[in-house]
Amino acid sequence: MTVDIKANGSCRQIPFNKVHITDAFWTERMKVHQDVTLDLCIKRCEETDRIKNFITASKGENKGAYVGRFYNDSDVYKVLEGAAYSLMHQENKELEKKIDEIIGYIGSAQEENGYLMAYYTVEEPEGRWTNLDRHEMYCGGHLIEAAVAYYQSTGKRNFLDIACKLVDHYMDTFGPDKRNWVPGHEEIELALVRLYEVTGEEKHLRFAYWLLEQRGKGYGSNEGDVKFEPTAEHISHPEYYQNNVPVKDIEKVVGHAVRAMYLYTGMADVSKYVNTDYEHALRRVWDNVVNKNLYITGGIGPSKKNEGFTVDYDLPNKTAYCETCAGIGLTLWNARMSWLEGHGKYMDVVERSLYNNIIAGWALGGDTFFYVNPLAADGTHNRKPWYNTACCPTNLCRFIPSIGQYIYCIDNDEVVVNLFIDSEVEMAYKGHNLRLIQETTYPVSSVIKLRPEYEGKEPVQCRLRVPEWCNSFTVQVNDKEVLAPVTNGYIQVTCENGQTIELNMDMPVRLVLANEKVTMNEGKVAIVRGPIVYALEQQDQDQPLADIKIPSNALFRVSNESIGGLPKVICYSRDGQKLATCIPYFTWNNRGEDAMQVWCVEEKAESLYY
Amino acid sequence: MTVDIKANGSCRQIPFNKVHITDAFWTERMKVHQDVTLDLCIKRCEETDRIKNFITASKGENKGAYVGRFYNDSDVYKVLEGAAYSLMHQENKELEKKIDEIIGYIGSAQEENGYLMAYYTVEEPEGRWTNLDRHEMYCGGHLIEAAVAYYQSTGKRNFLDIACKLVDHYMDTFGPDKRNWVPGHEEIELALVRLYEVTGEEKHLRFAYWLLEQRGKGYGSNEGDVKFEPTAEHISHPEYYQNNVPVKDIEKVVGHAVRAMYLYTGMADVSKYVNTDYEHALRRVWDNVVNKNLYITGGIGPSKKNEGFTVDYDLPNKTAYCETCAGIGLTLWNARMSWLEGHGKYMDVVERSLYNNIIAGWALGGDTFFYVNPLAADGTHNRKPWYNTACCPTNLCRFIPSIGQYIYCIDNDEVVVNLFIDSEVEMAYKGHNLRLIQETTYPVSSVIKLRPEYEGKEPVQCRLRVPEWCNSFTVQVNDKEVLAPVTNGYIQVTCENGQTIELNMDMPVRLVLANEKVTMNEGKVAIVRGPIVYALEQQDQDQPLADIKIPSNALFRVSNESIGGLPKVICYSRDGQKLATCIPYFTWNNRGEDAMQVWCVEEKAESLYY
Repeated sequence: MTVDIKANGSCRQIPFNKVHITDAFWTERMKVHQDVTLDLCIKRCEETDRIKNFITASKGENKGAYVGRFYNDSDVYKVLEGAAYSLMHQENKELEKKIDEIIGYIGSAQEENGYLMAYYTVEEPEGRWTNLDRHEMYCGGHLIEAAVAYYQSTGKRNFLDIACKLVDHYMDTFGPDKRNWVPGHEEIELALVRLYEVTGEEKHLRFAYWLLEQRGKGYGSNEGDVKFEPTAEHISHPEYYQNNVPVKDIEKVVGHAVRAMYLYTGMADVSKYVNTDYEHALRRVWDNVVNKNLYITGGIGPSKKNEGFTVDYDLPNKTAYCETCAGIGLTLWNARMSWLEGHGKYMDVVERSLYNNIIAGWALGGDTFFYVNPLAADGTHNRKPWYNTACCPTNLCRFIPSIGQYIYCIDNDEVVVNLFIDSEVEMAYKGHNLRLIQETTYPVSSVIKLRPEYEGKEPVQCRLRVPEWCNSFTVQVNDKEVLAPVTNGYIQVTCENGQTIELNMDMPVRLVLANEKVTMNEGKVAIVRGPIVYALEQQDQDQPLADIKIPSNALFRVSNESIGGLPKVICYSRDGQKLATCIPYFTWNNRGEDAMQVWCVEEKAESLYY
Repeated sequence: MTVDIKANGSCRQIPFNKVHITDAFWTERMKVHQDVTLDLCIKRCEETDRIKNFITASKGENKGAYVGRFYNDSDVYKVLEGAAYSLMHQENKELEKKIDEIIGYIGSAQEENGYLMAYYTVEEPEGRWTNLDRHEMYCGGHLIEAAVAYYQSTGKRNFLDIACKLVDHYMDTFGPDKRNWVPGHEEIELALVRLYEVTGEEKHLRFAYWLLEQRGKGYGSNEGDVKFEPTAEHISHPEYYQNNVPVKDIEKVVGHAVRAMYLYTGMADVSKYVNTDYEHALRRVWDNVVNKNLYITGGIGPSKKNEGFTVDYDLPNKTAYCETCAGIGLTLWNARMSWLEGHGKYMDVVERSLYNNIIAGWALGGDTFFYVNPLAADGTHNRKPWYNTACCPTNLCRFIPSIGQYIYCIDNDEVVVNLFIDSEVEMAYKGHNLRLIQETTYPVSSVIKLRPEYEGKEPVQCRLRVPEWCNSFTVQVNDKEVLAPVTNGYIQVTCENGQTIELNMDMPVRLVLANEKVTMNEGKVAIVRGPIVYALEQQDQDQPLADIKIPSNALFRVSNESIGGLPKVICYSRDGQKLATCIPYFTWNNRGEDAMQVWCVEEKAESLYY
């Protein structure tokens, strides 16, 4: 297999530690992460022996001594990743000491040959690399991500060395002239690219690419070498593992949602550095996900059965799975697509998932979590303080502090503004230092002001995303209208040092009529304002949720009363009846157990034109 | 017939001479009226011998000497009405002298017994009151309206006395114990109520009511007394004249559009002062007109054949008749309904018709006119400087200077703001003088500020219309949120002297999907912003109108470039293609002969949610 390393792409990411978030909404969310969620996740990892397992493993095989699910290492890694990000935002010697201690345990659990997974070392050393579906490389991938994050945060190599040694073990075991392997839960691929980005070692990149290329070639094709035992599911449901077709031939999203997202993320990551033939597959599957399999909340994966996809337009509400991790995966993938292709539609998906599905998984108080994020509930679905399979809490733990990286990037000498979050960013721009100040209360309001402080003499070329939800807006630079067209979801605006760009979008509350192909939502509407999908909780209503009908000519008031930092919306009929009080979907189930719905029956007003 | 005169209703109108319009949009329109249209209409009435006909008539029968259509007197009256209004806005001794001169001619044409219609006096004295369809009382109605206006404007009775004498003649000839009569073209009914309002003579009101009550009882029921000759049309098409059912039993709008509107206006006017049983009929027919027979432009009457209505949902575009006068009639009626019933939906219709259909009939330069206002044109439909049947230009001539009366009224001690027009109004309010200042650039923007200057101590109770097009807004009084519901199309807001009410409506450009029952517009959308319906003229486009498709996810820019005082709107595809440049519908055909369309083929974007 030849690997054609390509020149750097046109897009330069801005790491989140260069971005200072001053946003009212996100500052509060990140404070909750820092003050509550991070500590809580570390504590839970301790309480559940997730950390102790490494200590146990450091002593070698000891059947029966491992506690919990076989993939529990991964939670520790994600929490450490989150902790590393937290350190970038705020120095914390005590936390750093704690992390170093945990890294010590992890290192002690690594075997001589580099192998590292507490479960197998303790319980089943003979079973290593025999079952694709036991998350060995999934755990490894998260270890790598955490190690890279900690290295970037502190400059310390302690964790990174463990990661490199682990990867060396992978590459000693698998590869073009060795065994093949198709990880049952993707993650390693994207992690290897992150590792490549700090080590600069092409082997890390090549191995990621090689792993991707093994997919879809059928189990058993290499049986002589491969010492794994496919389960019946493996053979009958290769879709579940995205192992049904070679990745370049992917047409439709299949199988487990998180796995699919991590796969596409890895494909996009590899494509950043290698000339692959993945481009068409990624675009095709993106169309399939976004146009036929995406909940309005940015959630994906309707089915509990496979934690994933079924058939196009199958988007039930109450039984929607919409795993929090899948939303995060969707965001990871779409951010990569955005950087790769420079089209705003990818950041539209990021925004949709971020402000709705993802943060719904996280209580406003930061101390309980949803694994599953349905769009309707009967009052028995509640956030929990932890899960045996704790992927979602720990994924939030590492994701939330990293969102700064999605706000800006530089592409073709243009400063790209992807998310509207009050913040300041510093970057090198055409050889000079550029400080860009973004002022906004978005998504409370939809006015965005951008002011560059630039030492260079040239004008600063900006590209502002115009979100899909927006259908009319104005842009001006110091009161001068900019009429450039929106291309690929962005408008180009040029300004000088000290000038102000003002983007002003019309952001009415609007009724979104369900796509007619989604039969379960026939005749239903959702209440949406800007990127925020609203939901109705029973406690706010005067009548049973099922009886509430939203007239097509309903009148909405954006209230001064807010929840989770965003306004409630009150819906009236034209004759002054208060029909519903709506809260941002992500804030539901924060005031006790309750019934909830996003989609409401529409009542067609007898009107020719409304 | 007993007439049950009722107590004054709760609604007090504010005459337009108490309203000082300072609005950028309407000030310009009214200047054009004053400087161009009024003079032009007087001149045309002279050039076409419409005024000379009165002089001819003053000499008695003189067959062959009458010039023009038999109903041409009415045009002179409407122009005089417009001139009278103009004098209220601005003193003009020269104009007043000219009006007095014309009134002199009119007076001289009045016969001994009060009869006044130049055509019959000159050409066919024996034919008087023999044909319901010869507009005798229609002309009389317009005479009355002009006379009342001139009396109100100048305090002079010269014209009013002519009107009273004419009405005495009507009442000498027709009435409960005399002949019956069903005017073929309504107008007299509403005019008699206006007369009653200045004379206070109940007989004027009673006669209006009596005329309305004659309808729908069949021709010939009173044949012994009635000396008219119904034409074949009369007998076979009583709908054309709204003579098919007693007015209290009206269910659906039928026949000639202007006549129907003037009838309903008269019914509403009479109902203001008399306990009638018209209420349900008016509401029924309003529903029928507005929900099944109203063009998006506020035009009515699809058919050229009867200048009126056909069947529900028959709303063709290119052959739409939508006579300018019918739009004015619709406005007259709906304003009355608004004052009678206090529901905002009526002023929604006024606003729709006013900003679209009505002013479309009038070139921006004020010197040419549309009689017919189609919603699509192939480039052969142009405004003309005059028409042989000049009802539309002269109707505009009298209507435009009177719009101030539709902005405010007082209802149940509430100051009602019906239209958003930058203006000041003075009125008595709870025994003190109230000056209300409205500041807005509506419909360029949608922020409305209201500031009362009030000498009384009590708070000022206001009721602001929330237009049907608006589905989300905020109201505050000095930055304090008002969350009162919208009832009957209005929000109640209480404020003190010197406080400011701010109404802030979301006013995005939006696509209005045609009602599916309007088969000719299947799959088509109109581009609308606030109350303004946009149109596409061929000259602004890069491709033939017929080829332009508007995607459901189109992106709109409200341009700084304006036409007729309102911004152009530019429509782009999401990939940056400029698809169309749109102008306010009313401004079309102001830059030369051109093809035009309002409804465009929609291209459904492949998206689950947009």
